[in-house]
Amino acid sequence: MIAPTPEPPYVVVIFTSLRTSGDHGYDATAARMEEGAAEQPGYLGIESARGVDGLGITVSYWATAADATAWKHVAEHLDAQRRGRDQWYRAYAVRVCEVRRAYDGPEGRGDQG
Amino acid sequence: MIAPTPEPPYVVVIFTSLRTSGDHGYDATAARMEEGAAEQPGYLGIESARGVDGLGITVSYWATAADATAWKHVAEHLDAQRRGRDQWYRAYAVRVCEVRRAYDGPEGRGDQG
Repeated sequence: MIAPTPEPPYVVVIFTSLRTSGDHGYDATAARMEEGAAEQPGYLGIESARGVDGLGITVSYWATAADATAWKHVAEHLDAQRRGRDQWYRAYAVRVCEVRRAYDGPEGRGDQG
Repeated sequence: MIAPTPEPPYVVVIFTSLRTSGDHGYDATAARMEEGAAEQPGYLGIESARGVDGLGITVSYWATAADATAWKHVAEHLDAQRRGRDQWYRAYAVRVCEVRRAYDGPEGRGDQG
C-alpha cells in the first residue's frame, strides 16, 4: 500500500536491486526486515515493488537521517545486508534523500487498499 | 535496470501508485512518458517496478528541482497526469526529494543487466 507520511521534511532511503536467481531464504528475510524496520524509532512507512523484469524498488521513510542510519546498524539488519551482498543481489543502489515536497491524489475514490 | 547516477546532490521524484483495473491506454502512455522524460534537460535516469499486488513505484532522477518541475509541465506529460487522475490511478503519492548520499554494490559481478 501507499505509505501515509507526515508533512515534509522527512527522510527516504531508496533501495533499488536486481536479484540473483533462486530464493536462498530471501523472501522470509525480506518480510522479517519489513517487520524489524517498523519497530525502529522514527519509522514512518515502507513501500516495495518488484517487477517481472526482476528490478525491485523499496522506499523506507524515516523522521530523520539518524533514524535511517540507526536501522542500517541493527544487528539482524547488518546480517541481512551481508547476505544480500554475498548471495541475493546481482546489483543494488542505495540513495538517502530528504523529502522536500509531497502531494497525493486522486481524492474521493475511497480506500486506497 | 538500475539507473547510473552522478555523485549527490541531485533530485529524485518518487511516484507511488495503485492502478485501477484495465489498461485504458496506460501501458503505451507510460512507455511514451519514459521516453519523453529521457529527452528533457537535466534527466539523469529512471527506475520503475510494479508488483503483483498492484503497487507501482517509479523513481526519476534529475540534476535540479527545476528540471523535475519543468518535466511536470510539459504538455504531453500534463495530459498523461490528467488521464492518470481521471482514469488510471486509484491512489498515488508524489514525493520530491534531494539525494544526499548514495552507494552501490556488489562490485565485481559483471554487468547489472
